[in-house]
Amino acid sequence: MTAKSFQLKDPENIPLDSGKILPEISISYHTFGELNKSKTNVILICHPLTGSSDAMAWWSKIVGPGLPIDTTKFFVICTNSLGGCNGSTGPQSINPISKSPYLLDFPIITISDMVRCQYELIKHLGIKKIRMVIGGSMGGMQALEWVVQAPDLIDSCVPIASTTKVSPLAIAFDSVGRKSIIEQLKSGNGEAGLGVARQLGHITYLSEDAMEKKFSRRLQDNENYMYHLDPEFQIESYLNYQGQKFIGRFDLYSYLVLTKAVSYFDLEKTYGSVEKALSPSASKFLVIAISSDWLYTTAQSKALAYELMKMNKHVSYVEIDSDYGHDTFLIDSDETKQVIRCFLDSL
Amino acid sequence: MTAKSFQLKDPENIPLDSGKILPEISISYHTFGELNKSKTNVILICHPLTGSSDAMAWWSKIVGPGLPIDTTKFFVICTNSLGGCNGSTGPQSINPISKSPYLLDFPIITISDMVRCQYELIKHLGIKKIRMVIGGSMGGMQALEWVVQAPDLIDSCVPIASTTKVSPLAIAFDSVGRKSIIEQLKSGNGEAGLGVARQLGHITYLSEDAMEKKFSRRLQDNENYMYHLDPEFQIESYLNYQGQKFIGRFDLYSYLVLTKAVSYFDLEKTYGSVEKALSPSASKFLVIAISSDWLYTTAQSKALAYELMKMNKHVSYVEIDSDYGHDTFLIDSDETKQVIRCFLDSL
Repeated sequence: MTAKSFQLKDPENIPLDSGKILPEISISYHTFGELNKSKTNVILICHPLTGSSDAMAWWSKIVGPGLPIDTTKFFVICTNSLGGCNGSTGPQSINPISKSPYLLDFPIITISDMVRCQYELIKHLGIKKIRMVIGGSMGGMQALEWVVQAPDLIDSCVPIASTTKVSPLAIAFDSVGRKSIIEQLKSGNGEAGLGVARQLGHITYLSEDAMEKKFSRRLQDNENYMYHLDPEFQIESYLNYQGQKFIGRFDLYSYLVLTKAVSYFDLEKTYGSVEKALSPSASKFLVIAISSDWLYTTAQSKALAYELMKMNKHVSYVEIDSDYGHDTFLIDSDETKQVIRCFLDSL
Repeated sequence: MTAKSFQLKDPENIPLDSGKILPEISISYHTFGELNKSKTNVILICHPLTGSSDAMAWWSKIVGPGLPIDTTKFFVICTNSLGGCNGSTGPQSINPISKSPYLLDFPIITISDMVRCQYELIKHLGIKKIRMVIGGSMGGMQALEWVVQAPDLIDSCVPIASTTKVSPLAIAFDSVGRKSIIEQLKSGNGEAGLGVARQLGHITYLSEDAMEKKFSRRLQDNENYMYHLDPEFQIESYLNYQGQKFIGRFDLYSYLVLTKAVSYFDLEKTYGSVEKALSPSASKFLVIAISSDWLYTTAQSKALAYELMKMNKHVSYVEIDSDYGHDTFLIDSDETKQVIRCFLDSL
């Protein structure tokens, strides 16, 4: 399935939160399944930090024929985020004014900016109802932001392993990752910095238990220590591999921009309170947390669920019991599948 | 107080665990207080990763006249670790064969190697009893290793916020830190990599609660987001400051060598089991853990305490109730002071 591209008509009418304007905005998107005549079978998927619009590729256990997000029933839309590197306007796009890629000149964007662009696409497609907006991690932030920006459009919202307000711990990890990239850029080797940032990210995506089970203190190639500085432990080899693989598939400038957008995400700061942000909508909510997630903790998801209960919202909270950590939502999990399926059936 | 220096007489008789030999080994050390005539009032302090032999400087709330480690009563010894950068032989020392600093050619060492060199100093000083060996973090590993290497010499051992076996999570953080340094060294800017590694370290030294209390999501200089990539959040400024400060005071090659030694630390792997390692000694133990330490967790300290109980050792386990995280042992904590004082009184 190839991505389609949507060119925003009047990007100058959509100022970014920073006040800056992007003279051209193009949003890359995938659709799966068929839109019904009443246009009421739409599911919008928002991807996590390094995902793409090809949701059937990165969420292959959840999205597809007969799967929880059943593409024989639903018309599924997923866009590549503004600022990303998989088709939508981002730092590697050509700045029409300078005629060269933006790179570090790409404006700092927010989760709101991303949703604002997606919204233009939804309008363009003539869609007036979204049955469910769903996403994990950064995608969950977008899902929540959708409820704020389009309170009457969203029937239900499913943030997974996400938060209304990114914690100082998560800010710290992303900040050190960016620092690594920025320092390496100075010597023309930004990719090496991106690899380090990704290794760091992967530490936070796994739980301590998962590390213990998957790797423990096992050595990769030898029984005994080799007394050199190269990776020796399996956990080191794993992280090294993840870092290297990432360099080939992701743009470092996008990484800077997207992680900064995540650090900024804070419904309370932006809208005064979570209540002010979310109460105008009649959306239902399914808040999914991962028991072993220490990046966006169950406590943060529970806090959101409590807030929604206080607002008398229709809200369910489900904690997926997994020792795999934050990335549980991306892997094959029967519990995740079942809860999404049940929720969709209940709508 | 200036450091003294001890030159090992026959370093070729002390092969490193790697099998390599350092042709010259010099150990820098401080002593505080007076050795009594019977030479029975010795306390040996082992410093954490980036400490020095000047224990009264970095542990000023614990070591000194009238303090828990009372220098009017005890003869306190602290050495700079082999591989360090505060006076003992390390990567910045001149290799007598090549006549230039070792840098990356410095051999990979172990916690055992560090203790082996300290032991030579203790012999040189004519000391046959150590009332207490104590240390936090990497220092705690050395304290445990002392019990293994000198079972009859040690009266009591106090590992604080430490472990018998460094976890894959801790290995992962140190590995990413080293990767950052090694990648930056390729472009001649190793210090920038050291700064990133230190920032990363400081994340792990603080608890999530401490971050929330100290910084939360507060911005450093402005009320609103400034939409640039420079540090904006207080937590970012704090980490950035710590990274910068560290570059000025610590050698990046020592950082590589010492963190690798920590990653290797595993009494079980080295000696077959914790029991085989520690049971030959009649030492008493006080195992101190920090409630909010997620680098060397309370679970790890408890596991050590249980092992010691199974061996019928004299062991106390104290969990310092603090939300400050791993670094609690370095700060002014009444509970830490009290427990060390009580333990020393009980000996």
